[in-house]
Order: sequence, then C-alpha cells, then structure tokens
Amino acid sequence: MHPAIHYCSVCGTPVQQLIPPGDNALRHVCPNCHTVHYQNPRMVVGTLPVWEDKILLCRRAIEPRHGYWTLPAGFMENGESLEQAASRETLEEAGCSIDLGKLFAIVSIPHIHQVHFFYRAQLLNLDFAPGEETLEIGLFSENDLPWQDLAFRSVSFALQQFFSDRKAGMQQLHSTALSPVTAD
Amino acid sequence: MHPAIHYCSVCGTPVQQLIPPGDNALRHVCPNCHTVHYQNPRMVVGTLPVWEDKILLCRRAIEPRHGYWTLPAGFMENGESLEQAASRETLEEAGCSIDLGKLFAIVSIPHIHQVHFFYRAQLLNLDFAPGEETLEIGLFSENDLPWQDLAFRSVSFALQQFFSDRKAGMQQLHSTALSPVTAD
Repeated sequence: MHPAIHYCSVCGTPVQQLIPPGDNALRHVCPNCHTVHYQNPRMVVGTLPVWEDKILLCRRAIEPRHGYWTLPAGFMENGESLEQAASRETLEEAGCSIDLGKLFAIVSIPHIHQVHFFYRAQLLNLDFAPGEETLEIGLFSENDLPWQDLAFRSVSFALQQFFSDRKAGMQQLHSTALSPVTAD
Repeated sequence: MHPAIHYCSVCGTPVQQLIPPGDNALRHVCPNCHTVHYQNPRMVVGTLPVWEDKILLCRRAIEPRHGYWTLPAGFMENGESLEQAASRETLEEAGCSIDLGKLFAIVSIPHIHQVHFFYRAQLLNLDFAPGEETLEIGLFSENDLPWQDLAFRSVSFALQQFFSDRKAGMQQLHSTALSPVTAD
C-alpha cells in the first residue's frame, strides 16, 4: 500500500487535508509550498509464459503469499512501457527468455489501488532460474496446476481465461474488477 | 509529474537515495522510519464517445494544452476500476451519459511516467455540457476532425486506430509506446 502522507515530501511541512479549488476529492496539500500530493493506483504487470502445453509459474519467496504460486509479475516502474515492464519482471522473477505476446487479462482491484495486467508469452528455451523473489519455478499442464495454492485471485482469473480461450481456439482480452473477500 | 521527494511523508525526516537490499534501483528511503518511497507510473483513462458517425471531443480549459481538443480522460483515482475511471472522467469533462464499450487503445509514455487507456463508448443522448476543465464540446465526423489541434499524441493515436478499425469493420486492441518528441 501507499505510505501515509503526514508531511510534504517537497519541503517537510505537515500537510493538511482539503479539497483543492476545482477538485472534488480530499487531497493532502502542503500549506507552505502548496504542493498537492495525489495518490493514484499502481500497475502490476506480468506474463503467462507457455512451453508446449505447459505454463510457467513461480513460487513466491516474499510476502505477501510467501510459498504460493504466481505468474511472474511486479510493479511497473517509471520510465518503462507496459510491455517492457512485463518482460523485465519475467526476466527478474524467472530468469527466462520470452517472446512477448498480446495483453489478454486486466484485473482492477480498487480496494488495494492496483490494476494487474497479464500478457501472453512464449518461452524461447528452458534456461530459466528463480530470481531473488522466487523459491522455485514449475512448468504445469492444466490438470497439474496448483489451483488451490495460487497466490492471488488475479492470477487465478488470468489462468482460467487463458485455458478457456485455448479450448475455444481464441485470443481475447478479458477484463474484470475484484471486490474485497468477505467472510461467509 | 510527481512531486520531488526530499522528506519522508510519514515522519518528515530528510530522505536518502540508496538501493534497498534485494532491489536493483535507487529509491528514496527514510533513515528514521525506513519507509521506501517508490514512484510508479500513473494511469490516464478516458473514452471515445460516438454518436452516429460523429465523435465527441472536449476543448481543454486547463493546462497543459489549453484550448486544444482531446477525448474526455483523466487520472485514475484510488478506489476505482479502469472502467469506473473511464465513465467518471467522461461524465466530469463532458457531462454525458454513455454506454461504455471495449478498451481499444493503450499508449505507454515512459518519459512522463504515464499509461493512457481509451475505451469505446456510445453516447446515449445529446444532453452533454462542458465540465470545469472543458471550454466547449464538439461532435466531429472524421473529415471535420481538428487533427492539427489535438491536445495529445495519445489522443491522435486512439482516433487514428478507431477510424482505421471502423473502415475495416473490426474492433481490435491497439497498443503503442511514445518516445519524447525531438526537434528536427
């Protein structure tokens, strides 16, 4: 999540919460240098790497969801495109060479201020190796996939849509928004 | 652009620039409370509203590009989905009721740390009115469109792809990345 905004990052003065002129939402505003500190959602970008009929997954070495399986993905950085972020994260987390394909899944998660983007990818070879944030890498066919041990709902959504499209012989863009999980 | 980070927004201490353990990029880190202040790209989300063979454009009442024509769009806010952001911005800037369609254009602009998203939209009626950030609203057919007076290259890209798809009878997702404009 975003760090709290108690002080102005520009000049160090304690900020105030107010609705700036022409705006319609409360913002953190500096009474000294008048900087408005907007907070905006972040993009998480990754790939679904394919080798023959198998999918590459990474088992997470970090929190949240340490030990659970995920697609290689991470926060998009300043100075890169969505496609560059997808390729970089795949290289960092799985050390693998890919041919990047089409964007096929977008998952908005409003309550945690994130949007997740997943691209199709073709593994170019089997020379992959876990990065610092990965415990191990696995190649899974649809039936072997650790569906109960996936790290995030966005990853489940992407995998489900991928296999559904593969059965139908299609390549579509799928979009959804996730609500908070509520206890039964 | 993002405000400078000289002070920790959590505790007000002057930050240091260093590469945190396990990271590979310089970050602003607080030596007191150890908060890492990541900076990430922002999403700008909007629509291309259609009425019969015409497109709705807004003439900007604010900088940058005051007086130039744009599609209704703006920064995605925390707590909303991409689709909600597209509809909200269309309502705020053009006051119009739409039926939101498919995402059709994504434009990464790495040097300004933004990604722009444009959705198809169908105007439900002609009861639109300029919002606070809009001077006037116009409905343009392809031949009347103010191509030389568009506010942003991402808007030009979206409009070009839209008309190209319409001629071909297709609805595709188009993606590109823009580099800085260099003087000849």
